[in-house]
Amino acid sequence: MKALIVSIGDELVLGQTLDTNSAWIAARLAELGCDVAAHVTVGDDKTAIESLLRQTLQRDDPPDLLLISGGLGPTEDDLTREALADTLGVGLTLHEPWLEQIRTFFRQRGREMPRRNSVQAMIPTGAELIWNDHGTAAGIDARFERAGRAVRVLAMPGVPGEMKPMFEKSVRPIVSGASVGAVILQRTLHTFGLGESSVAERLGDLMRRDRNPSVGTTVSEAVVSLRINARFASVQDAINATERTIAECRAALGNLIYGADGQTLAQAVAQLLTQEKGTVATAESCTGGLVAKYLTDIPGSSQYFQQGFVVYSNEAKRQRLGVNENLLHVHGAVSEPVVLAMARGARRLAGSSYALAISGIAGPDGGTPTKPVGTVCIALAHLAPATRPLAKGVDREDEVNAYARTFNLPGDRAMIRDRAAKTALAMLRFRLLGEPLPF
Amino acid sequence: MKALIVSIGDELVLGQTLDTNSAWIAARLAELGCDVAAHVTVGDDKTAIESLLRQTLQRDDPPDLLLISGGLGPTEDDLTREALADTLGVGLTLHEPWLEQIRTFFRQRGREMPRRNSVQAMIPTGAELIWNDHGTAAGIDARFERAGRAVRVLAMPGVPGEMKPMFEKSVRPIVSGASVGAVILQRTLHTFGLGESSVAERLGDLMRRDRNPSVGTTVSEAVVSLRINARFASVQDAINATERTIAECRAALGNLIYGADGQTLAQAVAQLLTQEKGTVATAESCTGGLVAKYLTDIPGSSQYFQQGFVVYSNEAKRQRLGVNENLLHVHGAVSEPVVLAMARGARRLAGSSYALAISGIAGPDGGTPTKPVGTVCIALAHLAPATRPLAKGVDREDEVNAYARTFNLPGDRAMIRDRAAKTALAMLRFRLLGEPLPF
Repeated sequence: MKALIVSIGDELVLGQTLDTNSAWIAARLAELGCDVAAHVTVGDDKTAIESLLRQTLQRDDPPDLLLISGGLGPTEDDLTREALADTLGVGLTLHEPWLEQIRTFFRQRGREMPRRNSVQAMIPTGAELIWNDHGTAAGIDARFERAGRAVRVLAMPGVPGEMKPMFEKSVRPIVSGASVGAVILQRTLHTFGLGESSVAERLGDLMRRDRNPSVGTTVSEAVVSLRINARFASVQDAINATERTIAECRAALGNLIYGADGQTLAQAVAQLLTQEKGTVATAESCTGGLVAKYLTDIPGSSQYFQQGFVVYSNEAKRQRLGVNENLLHVHGAVSEPVVLAMARGARRLAGSSYALAISGIAGPDGGTPTKPVGTVCIALAHLAPATRPLAKGVDREDEVNAYARTFNLPGDRAMIRDRAAKTALAMLRFRLLGEPLPF
Repeated sequence: MKALIVSIGDELVLGQTLDTNSAWIAARLAELGCDVAAHVTVGDDKTAIESLLRQTLQRDDPPDLLLISGGLGPTEDDLTREALADTLGVGLTLHEPWLEQIRTFFRQRGREMPRRNSVQAMIPTGAELIWNDHGTAAGIDARFERAGRAVRVLAMPGVPGEMKPMFEKSVRPIVSGASVGAVILQRTLHTFGLGESSVAERLGDLMRRDRNPSVGTTVSEAVVSLRINARFASVQDAINATERTIAECRAALGNLIYGADGQTLAQAVAQLLTQEKGTVATAESCTGGLVAKYLTDIPGSSQYFQQGFVVYSNEAKRQRLGVNENLLHVHGAVSEPVVLAMARGARRLAGSSYALAISGIAGPDGGTPTKPVGTVCIALAHLAPATRPLAKGVDREDEVNAYARTFNLPGDRAMIRDRAAKTALAMLRFRLLGEPLPF
C-alpha cells in the first residue's frame, strides 16, 4: 500500500504559506500502515495539476492512493475538479444533493448562495462525492485504471479545518480498509550535547538502513533526535520491537537521551528538580533571560524556580550579584572566575539549592583572538546535600560547591545563545543525575 | 527561468517534521523572479532520490534549476551525494580543502573529527563544492545536460541554520545571474496589537484580489503581517508600485505598522531607544525572562539594556524590587499596583530611563473567576524627560511617571507569555513614539 500526497495552491508553491496539510496527512497514513512515496506541491494551474496526474498514472510503479488537498474552492483559481475530469477524459456532472446542501449552508447563515459557489457541486462524471461537514468544498473520490493497475484519487479541501475532519470521517476508513495489515509505529528520543555524527557512531549498527525498527537521526536547534520507525503486521509486535530498540539506544547513549517525543530538555530538568524538591536560580549575561524563560515554559515551574537575574553589564554583575570589581578587571566578564561568582551570588540571594550562571560572547561583534565569538563560560553552584555531615562550625549555606566550564559554541548569535542556555540546563541535569557532564 | 524545489528526509515524508525549507526557498526564488514549478519531498532512499532526478531530467520541459535541501549529513541515511553521482554516472571525489575544513571545525571545538564525517568531503566527480560557513555539510553544485538542455542542481544541507546562509551567500548569486523576465517583488509589513480582521477592515480596498501589487494578511505569533506582491515587467516598475502600496498601507494603519520584512518588534523598540539614548530594565513574573530575551536578541543590545529581574515568586518581588508586602496581600501579585511597584523598583535599581514590569496568569492553572487565565498586568515606568524643568527641590530621579494596564490575552501558556512580552514591548514603543497605545 503506497500513497502520494499532493497539495495544490499558489500560496504554497510561492512559499507564502507553509504546507502543514501534507505532513498531517502523512502522519495519519503512517499510523494506518500506508507508505508515503513522496509529497508534491503544485500551483493553481490546470496544466501543472493534469501533468502531475498523468505522470503519476504513467509510472511503472504508480501509487495505490493519491491524496490531494486544495483547489476545491468556488473561485477561478480552484482547478482540481476540472483537472481530474480532463485526466479521466470525462465531463463534470451536477451533484444535486450537494448543491442543495450548499444553499442550506448559506441560508443557515442568513445569506443567499453566491452564484459562483454552484461550481462546487460539479464533480467528474463517474466519481463519488465526499461530504464536507464544515464547508462548501465537497471532496472527490475518483478511480483511475491504467494497464490493470487501480489508482484511487481522494481530493479534499485545502482549509485544514475542513480537510482534517473529512479525512477522519471519510478518508481514514477507505485507507484502513484498503491497507493490508502493516502497522507503522513511530517514536522519537532526544539527546543534547554530542554532534549528530558522534551520536551515530555510538549507535553503530542500530542505524543500519535495513533494520526494522529503523533508527535515523535528525538535528533541530542543537537537539539530536533519534527517530525510531517500526513496521510490523501487528500492533503488539510493533510495540515490542520498538521497546527493545529504545532499550538498545539507551544502552548505547545512556543519559545523553534526556527524553522522548514532545519532551524538552527543560522539562527533563524540571522533573529531576521536582523529584528532589530542589530549586534553581539563574544569573544570565549573554543569554539575556533565555534560561529563565526555558525553565518557566513549564506549567507549575514556581515549584523549582523563584527568581533569576539578567546581568548584561559589568555594573549589573557587581550591583546585583556582588561580583568583585577586581575579578571582572583581571579575568574579564567572560571568564570562569566571574561566572562562578555570579552563580554563587545568585544562589545566595535567591536561597535556592542550585544556581546557573552564563557569560559569553554571542556575537556577531565582541570577539577577540583569545575569546572568539562563541566563547561561553557556564557555572553551576549548589548547596552541599543535606545528607552530608558538615565540619564543625560550618553553616550549610557556606558550604557551596561550584564548578565552571568554558565552551566554544558554533553558529550565529541566536544559535550560540540557544546552545548556551541548553548547555547550562544539561550541566544542571547531569548534576541532578549525579553523573559527570559527558561532553 | 523555472525551478523545482526538492526536500529530502524520512522525517518530512512521514510527517514527523514540517518542511519549512521549501517554502523559504520558494519565497527567495520569487523575489528573484524565478518561477517555481513544484515542490517535491522524498525520503532518505537512494532509489527514490535517483528516480526523482531521472524523471525530472527526462521531462519534455525540465526545470532550469533544481534546488535540493537535505541528505548531506555524515550518516548512512544521508544519500544525496551518492544519488547525484549515480545519476550523473560518475563516482565521488575527495575534496581535500573541505576535509581540512571539517577537521578544523572539530579542532576548534576541542574534538577530533569522527571518522564518518570524512564522507562529507566526498562530492560527485566534476561537480563543485559549495562552502558551508556554519557546519560540516558542504553543498554541491552539479550540472546535467540532456538533449541540449542544461539543468543545474544545487544541493544544500537540510538544517535551516546552515541552508539559509548558504543560499544567501552562494545560491542567490547563481539564481539572480541566471533569471530573466518578469519580476516578482515581495515586501512584508508587520503590525502588532490588532486582530487580523480589524487590520483587514482598515485596509479595505487595498486587499482586493485583482490588485497589483496585491495585499494579503497572515498571522504568526500574534504579529499580523501584510504581504505585498508586485509582478511587473521591470524592476523599477515593481519598486515604484510597491512603494506606493506601502505608503497606502501606512496611511491606513499608521504606527500600528512597526517594521518591514525581517524586522522584529524588539528591533523597532531598540532603534527608538538607541535614537534617544534611552535604557530599559525589565521586571518579569509570568513571562519569566522573555522580554529581556527579546531585547537582547539584537546585537549591540548592551547600549540600551543592562539588567533585568525575573521575579517569579512573591518573595522575589519583595526581596529584589522592594514591592510592599501589604500591596501583594491586598491586591494580589497580578494587579496594577503590584506591577507599578515592580516597574518603579526595577527602574530605580537599574538606573535606567524606562522599566517594564509584567505579572499575569499564563495558565493552564491558577485562574480564578475574577482573574482568569490570560489576565496580564503590565506597567511602564519612565523618568521625566531631561528637557522638562523640575519643581524646586525635586530630584529628577524622584519624578518618575508610570502607568499600568490590564489585558486579557487569548491562547495557551506559550501564546499568553509571548503576547504579554510583545504587548509590553508595544507599550514602550508607543511611549517612545509619544503616542497613546492604539489598542
